[in-house]
Amino acid sequence: MSNRAVVLFSGGLDSTTTLAIAVRERGSECHALTIDYGQRHRAEIRAAKRLARKYGAREHRVLHVPLDRIGGSALTDSALPIPRAGTRGIPITYVPARNTIFLAVALGWAETLDAKEIFIGVNAVDYSGYPDCRPEFIRSFADLAACATKTGVEGRPIRIEAPLINWSKAEIIQKGRDLGIDYADTVSCYAANASGVACGVCDACCIRRQGFLDAGIPDPTRYVS
Amino acid sequence: MSNRAVVLFSGGLDSTTTLAIAVRERGSECHALTIDYGQRHRAEIRAAKRLARKYGAREHRVLHVPLDRIGGSALTDSALPIPRAGTRGIPITYVPARNTIFLAVALGWAETLDAKEIFIGVNAVDYSGYPDCRPEFIRSFADLAACATKTGVEGRPIRIEAPLINWSKAEIIQKGRDLGIDYADTVSCYAANASGVACGVCDACCIRRQGFLDAGIPDPTRYVS
Repeated sequence: MSNRAVVLFSGGLDSTTTLAIAVRERGSECHALTIDYGQRHRAEIRAAKRLARKYGAREHRVLHVPLDRIGGSALTDSALPIPRAGTRGIPITYVPARNTIFLAVALGWAETLDAKEIFIGVNAVDYSGYPDCRPEFIRSFADLAACATKTGVEGRPIRIEAPLINWSKAEIIQKGRDLGIDYADTVSCYAANASGVACGVCDACCIRRQGFLDAGIPDPTRYVS
Repeated sequence: MSNRAVVLFSGGLDSTTTLAIAVRERGSECHALTIDYGQRHRAEIRAAKRLARKYGAREHRVLHVPLDRIGGSALTDSALPIPRAGTRGIPITYVPARNTIFLAVALGWAETLDAKEIFIGVNAVDYSGYPDCRPEFIRSFADLAACATKTGVEGRPIRIEAPLINWSKAEIIQKGRDLGIDYADTVSCYAANASGVACGVCDACCIRRQGFLDAGIPDPTRYVS
């Protein structure tokens, strides 16, 4: 029985923790996949390239899917400012159908690799309210994967694993520390500069900062403010 | 109420008929989307560029999603020969998760455009047995779209329209002729040459040839053999 897995990997706090769980706790042979979707925070891609091998991926691939040509999000359209944390409802940093697209591409690669599962580091507790980070989304995608693919109709559906989905950010950070992650390496900020220094005020930064506070662990992140 | 729609458009017989139905029967404002997924039959992309405006698309976009970097299909890996028609089971021309990826990208663009529906020209009658051409796949993707997106959770899910899904190839061709399509323009062949001349022996060619025969309509396709 293969223990091969595709891990969606952005180089952020959540997906790095997910990779470490897949490699070190589950013993999976991990094939890390970063989607370069034209995000403004290019530091994320550079972090992913540094971290995939460091945390045990067998292989790392960066695939370009130019969602900036579609737009509709502050993460892909530089005409839209990145808001400070605290906006109500689903924020403008929502990227239409992003995790659907990410999982779809991961599904294609997983089937080609004959991988048994896909790991994704979504979280529905300390998060920005994105619809495609919720448990019902993951369940629905798993149903789709079972009927969309050759492996699925042959009775070997690829599983979708979202180990962080019900954890607080503090719990994620504690788990990562136990697994030996140096979070100074990871980039969460939506507006990180070219050196990976975080803005400190966007939603991603505020959730991350609060997570370290709640975990009682010193925050190694470099913030501008 | 907007009548805007995204139409997945390959420049083949099915998607051209679907575009004509969306424009001429449904009165939709159609935004055609071609995914250049690194397919070997590049004539398809050239046909799509010629035909989108001709059959009434308001706009046409070609987005590059390099599935040839994933491989696993004779359509994206030139080391795998295109088989002649008649193989059993799901053929090697199956592209892992292709329609899931296409619909996911279409969903992102539809949400950005505030479109109400996505048209896709899949067909589960005279087809190659691909799992992601069946009605249950379309239903499952519609369920996913409703929970994956901002518009979905706000109670305005984007609909997935597959008007050809239960038609025979002959019925599709008859409908297209009634709507004024010149099928000489369209490219279905998996191994079409640079001028769009079809091989005549692959699965796509054989299904197409038989469709014209069954419809009693002269086949305008240029075949090598």
